Amino acid sequence: MAEKAPLEFYFDFSSPYGYFAAAKIDDLAAGGDRGVIWRPILLGVVFQTTGAVPLTHMAEPKASYFKHDWERLGRQMDVPFKLPSRFPIPTQAAARAFYWLDDKNPELARLFAKAAFHAFFAEDIDISNPETVADIAAGLHVKKEELLAAIADPKIKQRLKDENEAAIEKGVFGSPFIFVDGEGFWGCDRMWMVKKWMKGIGW
Amino acid sequence: MAEKAPLEFYFDFSSPYGYFAAAKIDDLAAGGDRGVIWRPILLGVVFQTTGAVPLTHMAEPKASYFKHDWERLGRQMDVPFKLPSRFPIPTQAAARAFYWLDDKNPELARLFAKAAFHAFFAEDIDISNPETVADIAAGLHVKKEELLAAIADPKIKQRLKDENEAAIEKGVFGSPFIFVDGEGFWGCDRMWMVKKWMKGIGW
Repeated sequence: MAEKAPLEFYFDFSSPYGYFAAAKIDDLAAGGDRGVIWRPILLGVVFQTTGAVPLTHMAEPKASYFKHDWERLGRQMDVPFKLPSRFPIPTQAAARAFYWLDDKNPELARLFAKAAFHAFFAEDIDISNPETVADIAAGLHVKKEELLAAIADPKIKQRLKDENEAAIEKGVFGSPFIFVDGEGFWGCDRMWMVKKWMKGIGW
Repeated sequence: MAEKAPLEFYFDFSSPYGYFAAAKIDDLAAGGDRGVIWRPILLGVVFQTTGAVPLTHMAEPKASYFKHDWERLGRQMDVPFKLPSRFPIPTQAAARAFYWLDDKNPELARLFAKAAFHAFFAEDIDISNPETVADIAAGLHVKKEELLAAIADPKIKQRLKDENEAAIEKGVFGSPFIFVDGEGFWGCDRMWMVKKWMKGIGW
């Protein structure tokens, strides 16, 4: 029997709903005997396609609704959440670091992604700064200077651009966006649909 | 012990996600020993507050995503769904008929709402027409001429305007919108949160 294809998990490191999905995606996939390919993207670039704006920039009462929703979602999902003092933030440094690590060791990259999300959304640490990103990676025994050199490398910058373009071509327009066998689901509140889809329900 | 407050369920008769929520809201509430107050609104009016547009008017790939999502959601939820030939439609006639019936008999109004939703989203019957709305009500033994006179009455027109304004003041900005003890949840994919909230999880 052919192995089942992994889920593809697209997210921006500055996306609260991406953070909540990240806390559950591996367990969700494991329940369907699948792995997960993590793919950070830049929502700022993706939003250019549809003209979307960050949730906290939306007209009231929407902006306030989302802020409130993240707080209660954190409590209901048992995932620590505190709206960061600076939000949203540019996430190029974190995303580039991820892809550099991912090419060496996908498991290490995933640990880094979870640590970066936790730093930003649970500890209010601004992860837009390359130094901060390197410190987080250093906690996973990655050499800080190597990582700083890597994320300044034009090759890794191009890599992130390519990943963004590939995501947009695949139909990604928000975060999180999860694909199972090519079928895309938008939002952390659609994980129940992904679960059903993995079982063939709704095909 | 005081009785538990009913859920308040806001929806537009032209909202697919409102339709899906309508199919499950009574069972959801019953699971928490609660009833449901149904409240049709006009999204066209509500959207003026936030500048929102109907989902099928959004930039691609969003519009196509939503159309596809409704089809598969119908299959996953076991709720018949076919994108109506004309969509979205004005729903004043259906909403006015609802409030006129609701003042006489809330249970009858709820049956009417379910029948109107079914006609539009399962049978592709355009329910923007007062005659069609009256035919649906006639199926529930409501006198057609009485209903047609009622929904042309300035009093019931004002009633719908008042309900819309009250919804906007309460913070409603989309459909469905569900309140449990004053806490608002947007979207048919948030019913699991409503369920937890009824149990006190996340307060």
